[in-house]
Amino acid sequence: MTTQILLNLAIILFATKALGMIARRLGLPQVVGAVLAGLLIGPAIWPGLGLDFMVLVNPLADGTIDAIKVLAEIGVVMILFSAGLETDLKELKRTGAAATGIALAGVFVPLVLGTVVTSLFLGGVSMLADPEVLIQCLCVGIILTATSVGITVEALKEMGKLNTKIGQTVLSAAIIDDVIGIVVLSVVLSISGGGADVGHTLLMTVLFFVCAIGLGIPINMLFKKLSQKYDHKRRIPIFGLIVCFLYAFCAERLFGIADITGAYIAGIVLCNVKDTSYIDRKIGINSYMLFSPVFFASIGLTTSITIDASVLLFALCFALMGIIGKVVGCAGLAKCFKFDNTDSLIAGVGMLARGEVALVVCNKVLSAGVFEGSIIDPTLPTILLIVTTSLLAPIGLKLLFGKKDKMENGRIQGMYDRVGQPPLDK
Amino acid sequence: MTTQILLNLAIILFATKALGMIARRLGLPQVVGAVLAGLLIGPAIWPGLGLDFMVLVNPLADGTIDAIKVLAEIGVVMILFSAGLETDLKELKRTGAAATGIALAGVFVPLVLGTVVTSLFLGGVSMLADPEVLIQCLCVGIILTATSVGITVEALKEMGKLNTKIGQTVLSAAIIDDVIGIVVLSVVLSISGGGADVGHTLLMTVLFFVCAIGLGIPINMLFKKLSQKYDHKRRIPIFGLIVCFLYAFCAERLFGIADITGAYIAGIVLCNVKDTSYIDRKIGINSYMLFSPVFFASIGLTTSITIDASVLLFALCFALMGIIGKVVGCAGLAKCFKFDNTDSLIAGVGMLARGEVALVVCNKVLSAGVFEGSIIDPTLPTILLIVTTSLLAPIGLKLLFGKKDKMENGRIQGMYDRVGQPPLDK
Repeated sequence: MTTQILLNLAIILFATKALGMIARRLGLPQVVGAVLAGLLIGPAIWPGLGLDFMVLVNPLADGTIDAIKVLAEIGVVMILFSAGLETDLKELKRTGAAATGIALAGVFVPLVLGTVVTSLFLGGVSMLADPEVLIQCLCVGIILTATSVGITVEALKEMGKLNTKIGQTVLSAAIIDDVIGIVVLSVVLSISGGGADVGHTLLMTVLFFVCAIGLGIPINMLFKKLSQKYDHKRRIPIFGLIVCFLYAFCAERLFGIADITGAYIAGIVLCNVKDTSYIDRKIGINSYMLFSPVFFASIGLTTSITIDASVLLFALCFALMGIIGKVVGCAGLAKCFKFDNTDSLIAGVGMLARGEVALVVCNKVLSAGVFEGSIIDPTLPTILLIVTTSLLAPIGLKLLFGKKDKMENGRIQGMYDRVGQPPLDK
Repeated sequence: MTTQILLNLAIILFATKALGMIARRLGLPQVVGAVLAGLLIGPAIWPGLGLDFMVLVNPLADGTIDAIKVLAEIGVVMILFSAGLETDLKELKRTGAAATGIALAGVFVPLVLGTVVTSLFLGGVSMLADPEVLIQCLCVGIILTATSVGITVEALKEMGKLNTKIGQTVLSAAIIDDVIGIVVLSVVLSISGGGADVGHTLLMTVLFFVCAIGLGIPINMLFKKLSQKYDHKRRIPIFGLIVCFLYAFCAERLFGIADITGAYIAGIVLCNVKDTSYIDRKIGINSYMLFSPVFFASIGLTTSITIDASVLLFALCFALMGIIGKVVGCAGLAKCFKFDNTDSLIAGVGMLARGEVALVVCNKVLSAGVFEGSIIDPTLPTILLIVTTSLLAPIGLKLLFGKKDKMENGRIQGMYDRVGQPPLDK
């Protein structure tokens, strides 16, 4: 078994990197390639087509499934830890109110839309009275919520618009959006996991945050001291990883909350020490060299997909709800905060992109067994959502900022026209 | 299970790092601390003393043993891959003849001594006629063979003697020594693994090296091209790791040779491309952040030790044979290559230090089941050997180089005395 895993890892690393590079060439995020790699090398599609010999990696059959699961779990924990580390608390405070509003709307509008539309596929809105159906529909909705900061940041940077007011607000909203999405996921999953006592779950969630932040303050101070004294020493990222693992473990075992929530909060606890970026870099290298390729591939490796009309229809509706929900929710709320029409639309489109966090949530929901025996499988729809939104978001942003620049130049030109001055060079 | 592993990893990382730092303060290599950490946090010693509550990590009991084994295996493969990457082929060629001679003597003298002395503990030299006893004794001998390059290099660097003729010869010999040791291990293990046909095993070993080098040349050329074109891109170390995993897998599955041999040869295949040190750095970060602490701790976590007089006596004899065998073998052969007495002794003492490779071999032998049901367990003796030799080697080198410098200064002084010049400043 331990030898077989070496071959499987070699194939997974090669396939995810090769397809990731192709995806990037096509203007898509690399994760799309990595997930498709898992679908292509694993038993997801080939057996259904009678092409069993195309299956290169079959963890269930060759006994490496547990090892793959553990590596994938460490991978997902590292991804969320890294996301937490990259949080900029100061910026978050400055743009706080508007960003929080936009994030909240960006979570709840897609959540409600996703829940309602999914219920239509499961027998109608009235079926939501059945707790099991409700949980399934809510989980589909939650997958729609998490914006990917990465794609939006890259697009805004490229256009030189990251440091505009709306740019910073979108960035903060995308981060807050992750926190809210993960909290909602934790609550729904822990309700689905047996007890079903909403009050108790909410209490444990609050308790977790109280403990995590209460312990986080002395840990943060300790790391500030440590990274003064042992700047850029190996022990700093190792101790960081220890905090991450402990938070993830405690979240799940002691509070019944998803371990990824713990890892994310651990990242936030360490997001403003001197060596934050050093820790993040080391975690990043561990992540991209092995753990996150295994995680993304494992999604494809552990599902089996049969594509028919109803699956495709659901995937399309899912992606559409994800797009409409975000744009309408975020743009609507930005308008409430007195952004003009273009800026409000920028907020909506900027929050559109989905990426690895959607996959993390999808995977979490699947491995919690929410969709066991259901006619719905959110894997394919999630991939479609990521592909469409990560193409639409940068294109939309470019168009909107182009329009905005033109309008502003026009206004300035108009001003100069009135006072008889030459027009501004562009 | 996947949550429990997070807690276990956090404890392992903390204990190995903390004890590793203490070991380094005491002038010992960090691996000694890491192995002791595994013994202290695991079920190796406490249950025997009735102190079960001291066991912090118990992989066999909590179901994480398979995950730990896989992570440890990846760790060991990375350690050997890295050792291969750090090989300097040019230097190896230059100092080739003398270094190969010293390495050969440094392998075979301890191997024979270890085999003979171990047989005394198993009923006398005549017992070597029993194949099972012979394999056990040979395996003990093999653990004694592998010199640790790291400690010697560090000591030589500190004294500014790495670039002397004897310094370079010792360095090359330590590398060749690893190759020979690993080949001998492969042969013995594959004989013990069933077939017991020495001819077939040797043939497969030769075939492996032919294929590994035959394929290695085009792979090396490919990487030279790749690292010209994609200098310092993530894909380079990822592709490197893929080659490493494939070599390790093929060595074990296709040729019946230890996977670590494959990983080591993969490292040598990539040891002279433009991005070698870049690959090595990325592998190193993955290794020290997670995989190698788990590997070193796993040795302690998976043994149970009962210390009595005979165990201690064996451990002492084992360490003594390791010390005498290396010094006598290497110094003796250096003398044959016309090094003077002091330089010959420097060769012997320089080859003395043992480190992670001894642990790798010990672990490999244990997991192959060679010592199942035997009264001998090489874990504790190996740790004792590492502790004593890694203290003795730097001290001995310092004394010998001090003596040599004094002698040379004396000689120069004498020359100047004869021609009436002032003495050389030191």
